[in-house]
Amino acid sequence: LVVKKYTVAIIGATGAVGCELIKILEKRDFPVGEFRLFASKRSAGRLKEFKRESFAVQALDASSFEGIEVAFFSAGSAVSKEFAPILASHGALVVDNSSAFRARRDIPLVIPEVNGYEARGKRGIIANPNCSTVQLVLAVEPIQRAWGIEHLFVATYQSVSGTGGRAMRELREQSLAHLEGRPLEKEIYPSEIAFNLFPHIGDFDSEGLNLEERKIVFETRRFLRDESLILSVTAVRVPVFRCHSEAVALITKKTTTASEVADLLRSAPGVRLMDGKDMASYSTPRLAEGRDEVFVGRLRNTLPEGHGISMWIVSDNLRKGAALNAVQIAETALGLGYK
Amino acid sequence: LVVKKYTVAIIGATGAVGCELIKILEKRDFPVGEFRLFASKRSAGRLKEFKRESFAVQALDASSFEGIEVAFFSAGSAVSKEFAPILASHGALVVDNSSAFRARRDIPLVIPEVNGYEARGKRGIIANPNCSTVQLVLAVEPIQRAWGIEHLFVATYQSVSGTGGRAMRELREQSLAHLEGRPLEKEIYPSEIAFNLFPHIGDFDSEGLNLEERKIVFETRRFLRDESLILSVTAVRVPVFRCHSEAVALITKKTTTASEVADLLRSAPGVRLMDGKDMASYSTPRLAEGRDEVFVGRLRNTLPEGHGISMWIVSDNLRKGAALNAVQIAETALGLGYK
Repeated sequence: LVVKKYTVAIIGATGAVGCELIKILEKRDFPVGEFRLFASKRSAGRLKEFKRESFAVQALDASSFEGIEVAFFSAGSAVSKEFAPILASHGALVVDNSSAFRARRDIPLVIPEVNGYEARGKRGIIANPNCSTVQLVLAVEPIQRAWGIEHLFVATYQSVSGTGGRAMRELREQSLAHLEGRPLEKEIYPSEIAFNLFPHIGDFDSEGLNLEERKIVFETRRFLRDESLILSVTAVRVPVFRCHSEAVALITKKTTTASEVADLLRSAPGVRLMDGKDMASYSTPRLAEGRDEVFVGRLRNTLPEGHGISMWIVSDNLRKGAALNAVQIAETALGLGYK
Repeated sequence: LVVKKYTVAIIGATGAVGCELIKILEKRDFPVGEFRLFASKRSAGRLKEFKRESFAVQALDASSFEGIEVAFFSAGSAVSKEFAPILASHGALVVDNSSAFRARRDIPLVIPEVNGYEARGKRGIIANPNCSTVQLVLAVEPIQRAWGIEHLFVATYQSVSGTGGRAMRELREQSLAHLEGRPLEKEIYPSEIAFNLFPHIGDFDSEGLNLEERKIVFETRRFLRDESLILSVTAVRVPVFRCHSEAVALITKKTTTASEVADLLRSAPGVRLMDGKDMASYSTPRLAEGRDEVFVGRLRNTLPEGHGISMWIVSDNLRKGAALNAVQIAETALGLGYK
């Protein structure tokens, strides 16, 4: 049996998601033939390990795109907007982790467990959803199908790794400064992040939503196939290094109970339902680090019983929220028997 | 003009709330005549400063209750249950900061701005609400009166000072250990609190709510005068030293908009509405430390407009959430012209 191998590129190979992409391609034994790593000029020349081989990171330059069959973009919207269409026009499969193409109706926005059919056999650009959206939709889309969702409320607890490596350093340095009684220096975030938190992820729009909330609203409505879904999202940055958590409550159209929803989610793909007998089953950011599953816990009735349910969702934002979902999209598109 | 002075006692004078009570009594120039501080045997003999005088903390003993006219309890439910009725039977005004009496229909549960009339002229026990409830109710009760609330959704971000001084030390020590690469030791919390968070504040009941959520549900329904209010509360402990934050969304019975609600809350007592032109106005735990106000920010429409509003509430859990509200209750009961 000869397995077809692909010339694979990662654009943004030195960032937090880029590093995770390399690990996941290796772990899942993705059929990588030639492997090309790109980043900004500043990072060019750095070495990254993949299957015990070292690969030098190159400065991004469209003239070196020749032959690339699968490309993962994770270098921000501007880079995606400029370079992804070039690769797509060469016939490559491009999985874009930025928000550049998520609003484009002609470009699939895919969570394989939910709408993998939109990726199957596809080439060109496929958009990878926002990290917070992926873990939310995996848990609530089955509920939308079964009972219909009337109102959806989400409050997020998002780690600094969503911003990237420099933000992780800022949390570390500010925390140490605080503990040692030194003044805190701000560089990345608008407010202090050490032992603090703020409902501010991206710029605010005229309706008072920050960019992260706008993304979650838009993408969730798209995945739930309801453009006028009533929802409230508050996106909050918290002093946690990795993994995003979400407190979610929903009012369903048809009456259901927490135990019916538990029965449904127990077999929902990508979801790991935590429903220990003690009612206290939940995950935390530290427990979810490096894990593939989306952990759904504390499933209970919104009170009084019969109106809807509430739950606690935790997932590794760099894995299912970003790199893992991107690789699964590629596996689905290429018919690699994604599992 | 001779101002009547009271013999005042603090039971639990060495705890986080007790220390704050002493500061607030001083700052508000509460008419303290004799001042008696009580704590557990372990803390007896410690000295606390009040108006430049030192007071020795005594071990709690009902035989030293003679003459006490105003007592603040902040030493846990068990202590309140045992000792508060004794003081009340002597005719004292007892403001209890524990949950011991909050469910008792014959005992007022008071936020002076909301139902101060239940405290006016009162002696005996008055219950001080849960910290998370106070800041929530101050912001949403005016909305309940104006438009009616159909669904209420709350996700909290609660600091460790709500647990007390030892929890603050645990956050500090675990954080330092993490930053220095040492193993983390758990003593107070069920999960690591350093760079982590968990939806677990108090024990879980058979409906899957933790104790903090149960308190918020029960007390909020009481203050909003709606025993069957549909609501979802997720109470989460976060790695922040002081101040609680809440992401709140509500669906109103009568149609309203964020700008109408802003007009109402701008003059709501105890509330400081943050409604800067940039839509990004919000407080954070660090900004609210040591402040008396309940900061309401990020007031916006739950989407699409017309169904309800969403907001971000931050308050110092040791002040308005505990010690300040307790002192205001006493001022109201004694007719001291509380402002």
